[in-house]
Amino acid sequence: MKVVRTIGELETAPATGLVPTMGALHAGHVALLRAARQENSRVVMSLFVNPAQFDEQSDLAAYPRDEARDLEIAEAEGVDVVFAPAADELYPPGFATWVDPGETGAEGAARPGHFRGVATVCLKLFDLVRPERAYFGQKDAQQLTVIRRLVRDLNVPVEIRAVPTVRDPDGLALSSRNGRLTREERQQALGLPRALAAAVGDPDPVAAARGSLNGLEPEYVEVLDLGDAKVLAAAIRVGSTRLIDNVLLEGELT
Amino acid sequence: MKVVRTIGELETAPATGLVPTMGALHAGHVALLRAARQENSRVVMSLFVNPAQFDEQSDLAAYPRDEARDLEIAEAEGVDVVFAPAADELYPPGFATWVDPGETGAEGAARPGHFRGVATVCLKLFDLVRPERAYFGQKDAQQLTVIRRLVRDLNVPVEIRAVPTVRDPDGLALSSRNGRLTREERQQALGLPRALAAAVGDPDPVAAARGSLNGLEPEYVEVLDLGDAKVLAAAIRVGSTRLIDNVLLEGELT
Repeated sequence: MKVVRTIGELETAPATGLVPTMGALHAGHVALLRAARQENSRVVMSLFVNPAQFDEQSDLAAYPRDEARDLEIAEAEGVDVVFAPAADELYPPGFATWVDPGETGAEGAARPGHFRGVATVCLKLFDLVRPERAYFGQKDAQQLTVIRRLVRDLNVPVEIRAVPTVRDPDGLALSSRNGRLTREERQQALGLPRALAAAVGDPDPVAAARGSLNGLEPEYVEVLDLGDAKVLAAAIRVGSTRLIDNVLLEGELT
Repeated sequence: MKVVRTIGELETAPATGLVPTMGALHAGHVALLRAARQENSRVVMSLFVNPAQFDEQSDLAAYPRDEARDLEIAEAEGVDVVFAPAADELYPPGFATWVDPGETGAEGAARPGHFRGVATVCLKLFDLVRPERAYFGQKDAQQLTVIRRLVRDLNVPVEIRAVPTVRDPDGLALSSRNGRLTREERQQALGLPRALAAAVGDPDPVAAARGSLNGLEPEYVEVLDLGDAKVLAAAIRVGSTRLIDNVLLEGELT
């Protein structure tokens, strides 16, 4: 496995699968890496905590980082190249061109500028790695939609593959931010997937989910129309940690 | 020469040069086509009056169109493929992702949204045609800077080539909009290149150009720092026609 830190060292090759990550890898990332490994002759994983997609400096500062462990996991999963640039390699002085996905609902409203940062860094990674396929988790359902629309609107020659959310046995969706939860906070956080799951099939899923959040105050609970599918999505804050999750209501998140 | 109207029919090939145009071809475009022909084994010309870059509907409606003549010129200049899509081929229903080059001075201020439209369509064309090189005229100096910055910021694998402004013997920079000028308006319009040329070397080139515009009221006269070069740029309106021009003050518009 090769670790590449500069754009100049990065090589392109046919039949490449790209897994963009911000590190702090968990079993959700591993599912992405395995899907990529199965479908491509070469797998590139990016490892970059993208400052442009954090709307809160405190969240960026607290974001977990453990590169040595991430590289071990990548190696074990058969990754060929890890692209781990410094921030100024992707955002050099004078950087001024942004991709605006025009996303306004749910996460877009709750985190101003977040999807602009996501869309911009993903387009850069697509241009740098030139993958045939790129892999994203269904946990970030809206992000998946933003990326699919970006690829369609800007005619980017890459296939976007969605991989199902991986959950712990207790139902909590895996997230790099889960490690920040105390034991009590984790118990509280379980209210989120339970409330979402309980609302599936209810004629008013938003009200049903809100009603069973057991006092957790959501940032939003919204039905998102993602084109091929509708999901019920919510964000909560437990202590200082912000968590999101979603369940499928209709269709398929392909 | 092949004329392609849908994205599906468009093929990519190595060593391709792209000349993006809005049609109404003149000798300035021919200079771009010849530069592309010289440096590439395959030349693709796009012919698309991009609605997204017009800030005024009246300007879009009045923009000259003569596809039959444009195709003749392209054929005579040895173009291999003309890509001439309808507007909804590039902007399908639900289109929502824009490239924002954050350009604020001169044309950016005078024509809100103009460079967003230019940047978005150019990125789309780069993704669709995947050229090795793309050709732009120095007459649109700020556009050239926007495109160069876009390519750098978003890591687009294309080389941007600048081609000098072509002028009529009387000094007027060629523009598809010149055909709209009456004989009297054309005489007035000549004040623009003359005022710019006269200002070169003056310690205050903006004041010098303004002072010799002979009563023409400019939309702006500005010194633009384009990185490698400084140009003195101006826009005027003669009758209902808007014209821009620029001269080099320092450096080189590579």
